[in-house]
Amino acid sequence: MAKVLIVLGSDSDLKRIEACFTTLDDFSIDWDLELCSAHRSPERARDLALNAEANYDLIIAGAGLAAHLPGVLAASTLLPVIGVPLAAGPLNGQDALYSIVQMPPGIPVATVGIDGGKNAAVLALEILALKEPELRDKLREFRLEQARKLEAKNQSIKAGLASGH
Amino acid sequence: MAKVLIVLGSDSDLKRIEACFTTLDDFSIDWDLELCSAHRSPERARDLALNAEANYDLIIAGAGLAAHLPGVLAASTLLPVIGVPLAAGPLNGQDALYSIVQMPPGIPVATVGIDGGKNAAVLALEILALKEPELRDKLREFRLEQARKLEAKNQSIKAGLASGH
Amino acid sequence: MAKVLIVLGSDSDLKRIEACFTTLDDFSIDWDLELCSAHRSPERARDLALNAEANYDLIIAGAGLAAHLPGVLAASTLLPVIGVPLAAGPLNGQDALYSIVQMPPGIPVATVGIDGGKNAAVLALEILALKEPELRDKLREFRLEQARKLEAKNQSIKAGLASGH
Amino acid sequence: MAKVLIVLGSDSDLKRIEACFTTLDDFSIDWDLELCSAHRSPERARDLALNAEANYDLIIAGAGLAAHLPGVLAASTLLPVIGVPLAAGPLNGQDALYSIVQMPPGIPVATVGIDGGKNAAVLALEILALKEPELRDKLREFRLEQARKLEAKNQSIKAGLASGH
Amino acid sequence: MAKVLIVLGSDSDLKRIEACFTTLDDFSIDWDLELCSAHRSPERARDLALNAEANYDLIIAGAGLAAHLPGVLAASTLLPVIGVPLAAGPLNGQDALYSIVQMPPGIPVATVGIDGGKNAAVLALEILALKEPELRDKLREFRLEQARKLEAKNQSIKAGLASGH
Amino acid sequence: MAKVLIVLGSDSDLKRIEACFTTLDDFSIDWDLELCSAHRSPERARDLALNAEANYDLIIAGAGLAAHLPGVLAASTLLPVIGVPLAAGPLNGQDALYSIVQMPPGIPVATVGIDGGKNAAVLALEILALKEPELRDKLREFRLEQARKLEAKNQSIKAGLASGH
Amino acid sequence: MAKVLIVLGSDSDLKRIEACFTTLDDFSIDWDLELCSAHRSPERARDLALNAEANYDLIIAGAGLAAHLPGVLAASTLLPVIGVPLAAGPLNGQDALYSIVQMPPGIPVATVGIDGGKNAAVLALEILALKEPELRDKLREFRLEQARKLEAKNQSIKAGLASGH
Amino acid sequence: MAKVLIVLGSDSDLKRIEACFTTLDDFSIDWDLELCSAHRSPERARDLALNAEANYDLIIAGAGLAAHLPGVLAASTLLPVIGVPLAAGPLNGQDALYSIVQMPPGIPVATVGIDGGKNAAVLALEILALKEPELRDKLREFRLEQARKLEAKNQSIKAGLASGH
Repeated sequence: MAKVLIVLGSDSDLKRIEACFTTLDDFSIDWDLELCSAHRSPERARDLALNAEANYDLIIAGAGLAAHLPGVLAASTLLPVIGVPLAAGPLNGQDALYSIVQMPPGIPVATVGIDGGKNAAVLALEILALKEPELRDKLREFRLEQARKLEAKNQSIKAGLASGH
Repeated sequence: MAKVLIVLGSDSDLKRIEACFTTLDDFSIDWDLELCSAHRSPERARDLALNAEANYDLIIAGAGLAAHLPGVLAASTLLPVIGVPLAAGPLNGQDALYSIVQMPPGIPVATVGIDGGKNAAVLALEILALKEPELRDKLREFRLEQARKLEAKNQSIKAGLASGH
Repeated sequence: MAKVLIVLGSDSDLKRIEACFTTLDDFSIDWDLELCSAHRSPERARDLALNAEANYDLIIAGAGLAAHLPGVLAASTLLPVIGVPLAAGPLNGQDALYSIVQMPPGIPVATVGIDGGKNAAVLALEILALKEPELRDKLREFRLEQARKLEAKNQSIKAGLASGH
Repeated sequence: MAKVLIVLGSDSDLKRIEACFTTLDDFSIDWDLELCSAHRSPERARDLALNAEANYDLIIAGAGLAAHLPGVLAASTLLPVIGVPLAAGPLNGQDALYSIVQMPPGIPVATVGIDGGKNAAVLALEILALKEPELRDKLREFRLEQARKLEAKNQSIKAGLASGH
Repeated sequence: MAKVLIVLGSDSDLKRIEACFTTLDDFSIDWDLELCSAHRSPERARDLALNAEANYDLIIAGAGLAAHLPGVLAASTLLPVIGVPLAAGPLNGQDALYSIVQMPPGIPVATVGIDGGKNAAVLALEILALKEPELRDKLREFRLEQARKLEAKNQSIKAGLASGH
Repeated sequence: MAKVLIVLGSDSDLKRIEACFTTLDDFSIDWDLELCSAHRSPERARDLALNAEANYDLIIAGAGLAAHLPGVLAASTLLPVIGVPLAAGPLNGQDALYSIVQMPPGIPVATVGIDGGKNAAVLALEILALKEPELRDKLREFRLEQARKLEAKNQSIKAGLASGH
Repeated sequence: MAKVLIVLGSDSDLKRIEACFTTLDDFSIDWDLELCSAHRSPERARDLALNAEANYDLIIAGAGLAAHLPGVLAASTLLPVIGVPLAAGPLNGQDALYSIVQMPPGIPVATVGIDGGKNAAVLALEILALKEPELRDKLREFRLEQARKLEAKNQSIKAGLASGH
Repeated sequence: MAKVLIVLGSDSDLKRIEACFTTLDDFSIDWDLELCSAHRSPERARDLALNAEANYDLIIAGAGLAAHLPGVLAASTLLPVIGVPLAAGPLNGQDALYSIVQMPPGIPVATVGIDGGKNAAVLALEILALKEPELRDKLREFRLEQARKLEAKNQSIKAGLASGH
């Protein structure tokens, strides 16, 4: 059963949030991807949002420039929507960040950092873990692994410094 | 026959673009006002946009914060949409400006300055004048009047300086 | 049983996110409030985060300036953390927004808009609804009520215009 | 008969708004191009604007840095002027955006996004369609085609995911 | 004989650069003031610039928002033009600063700080002193007086601290 | 006799304002160049400024980052100081622009655009022309030549379009 | 024996960093205050910096706008210089922050937050504690007191909520 | 005996502050490096900070994005903490700068410029010189050498100009 719906406004955004896909895969979370634009295919965006509740637990939406997609989806669903501002264009994602995070009172988008595909996935996992406690155990291990990897790099750099200093 | 549809996301925005209403009135242009939010009443926003072509020549939409309304309307109509970013919130309209002007290729919004209700109206008049040439004559008179008023202030200030300098 | 832990770095922030409290109350969600600073009481911040899993479903944290509190809590819990940047200081919340949303890969904070206390609450409700389906029904009613209120204002303004136009 | 006058301040700007030319061509709209600077050839800029009404329906003007050209043209014509801020220089078009969109009350410029040549053209088409209804039909087809292309990419990506997932 | 031409786009700007007038008066420099807008009275702006060489040594121009006035005057005169960005509007003069300082190669505007009327006058005096050496002596005295005033405040504050510390 | 003193904080800045040197050469203006830092060689900066009046008519100073050099020189001379903010560093010259233009009342720096070496030279020429009227004739020719070059490019592009359109 | 030299560019800045004075007083640290401007009294600024080593352990300097004072002092002393950007002017201290923190390699300024007078004092205390270990004990107590005060407010708010909730 | 503890959040930051290591080495200051993240290894960050007083005189911490590391360390130590914002990500270090410098009252971080590894080291040396006066002599020589190198470049460029001008 699919859990997470990922919506992107353009195929050029795929690479920018690739870490989102791989992180969800690492946790064996089913996800579907839809290319769909709030402006170029507004009817599909609306239909995706209106029907999402039946099939998904939450939505991740990434967009650049005047990034309306996450907010537009949020307006037509009661599922949590995670928004990923993308650094597509001369303003480096500053425009997308404002367009996603500054939603008016009543219709929130859970915004992560610019090009933050990985954090969108981890946030999704933390949310899904409310329903599926075993996910929390996997997240705990993921966190420990993050710390272990950093510490391994730390030891390796310190060893290098000790021999070359 | 109504010509211009004005859409605002919140009644607190009314005062910010009041000059839009008075300027259209000065030119005897019919307009209708709808309060409607891209996020809180997305179905109405869509319906307004889908039906606008039958009754209006263009749309003026004002919004603050993550100001999706102009772009969302533009996505569902072929009428020109003029967007007015409003300085509602701690970022002083910078967020609304980016959210309105940075539309993706294919779905433009004709953006005017922050809190630029008057310019939205004048731009509407310039556009409508393509169809109704007599509007251009009124615009010409409006421009001359602007210049005359400025020159009158100029003379009055210079007279004050001459007597008090 | 308490569901939501709200953490603020300073009592001067209370008023800025008051809508968070009232919105959670409207949905009969239990919440606890803790004043606690990532910098002035780091041990308490850590203990709150480490113990939160046992008693809460998610955390809402608001902070201004170099707003580390949401990220610091997120580093010591697996619960979803919703961060509210507050416009406390001369940069109007721009500093707090960056400090909260731009988290490094692996430790996300679900960021809402500047001074977005109400949206923090609504996002919390959308997330909690994954576990408690009856919340979703209340949210649906809340959304309809939002739309109804906007439409009522719309009708009242149009009536005013019709009589005074 | 030419419809649209395109004015650029520098030949280095040609590539930045190339999509403007091709889009107008796709709709068989006649356009003329003039290189002309508000600062280096102010008399020509003025003459172009003063004479534009006789030969054109609207003006598209692109400029970078302190981008005065669109506003300067707007000051001497009653035609709608569409301004395209260009990302030419270290501020990535932020300077051009402010210089174009923040026009004082009374003389608007219809601003599109940074490097938004395509949107300038589409906006021009939407405006021209007020006079020439058959353009609206072409725009409708253009919109459908945009949606079809996006959906085709969507299907192709989903097929790829289905086989490789 | 008048030396300095001061041009402002709006009478609401008068107070913002008042220190410009008083500083020039303190140095007994003749100045004329003209209200004139690059957009609302472009012909007058052009005529002022074209005729300035005959009567003035330099021009000071202040404007807010998309502040084209200094650059537009500079385009039609060979006199040095000093531009004063004014904090008129929600962007606090950031828009005016970019619109004035980021002039394209070949047509400079000597830009001073936001609301910097006094510095516009002092810069004018430094420039005029190239021709009129006695102005330099007055500037030297002005500088010494600035330092003396600051030192007097310094001593007064230190005395206050010494008695109250 | 040397006329213009050019001061740069670092040899890495030389290329960024090269057009300053060539433009002054084109007008046969003598200039001297000094590498000197407001922070790394403050005594030399002070001596250069204190002695500049005897040998020069004005100073051009370029600097990046916290660009104090133009203001520091201005504090110790009565000559006009032209400041050139340089895009050296991750903030693309925004830091240098603020550090140069936002001088406190009483000590102005005539600021040109980021990396605006050419405009610094042209502004210097406009200022020097107050003393040396023949410079103004050369500037007039320079302006005409600018317009001619632009028009030549214009004709060449239009010819290309006419044959290929 | 005085330990800390505080330098401000203007008496209008006194109130903005008042917490600096009171915090140093709370720790019984001697301090001297000098009003002195990098631009209006550059010789005094230089002399203060050159002579500071003989009488002080470190310098705190506050300034607004193009805030050169901390960097200029740092250029002429080997003492640590703590810089306090002040929100004096339309850019709210953003200009002062860049002017102080973005110092070129080799001459650092220890920058604290905008209007951060208190943090300048605490940072000074942390630095002085390297020499005077008893200061560290006082700082420890200060930290505990900060935490205690926050916790007291916390308890008081929770009590209020418990009775009124 | 080690004096300075350097903490980085990621090994990808090593190159960005390399000048920090070499500068400390040039002054024969012992330093230790720890890779440690405020978010991925919060317990180690806390332990490093809590134990730092016993072994170090001060801490240098560099981080990008929502750069909490310097502030988090500062919250758990009384040693001075020098923070280095790193330009890692689409906002070019603007996010890191705000996250580091805008600390709340009571817990300062001594912030240097973006990617300012060298200045972090020099600031550390200036602070350590309070305890170890011979460091000040070395710093004096370092400053002189900086000035000498700049002057040598100056002479070499002037010689080049003299021969080629």
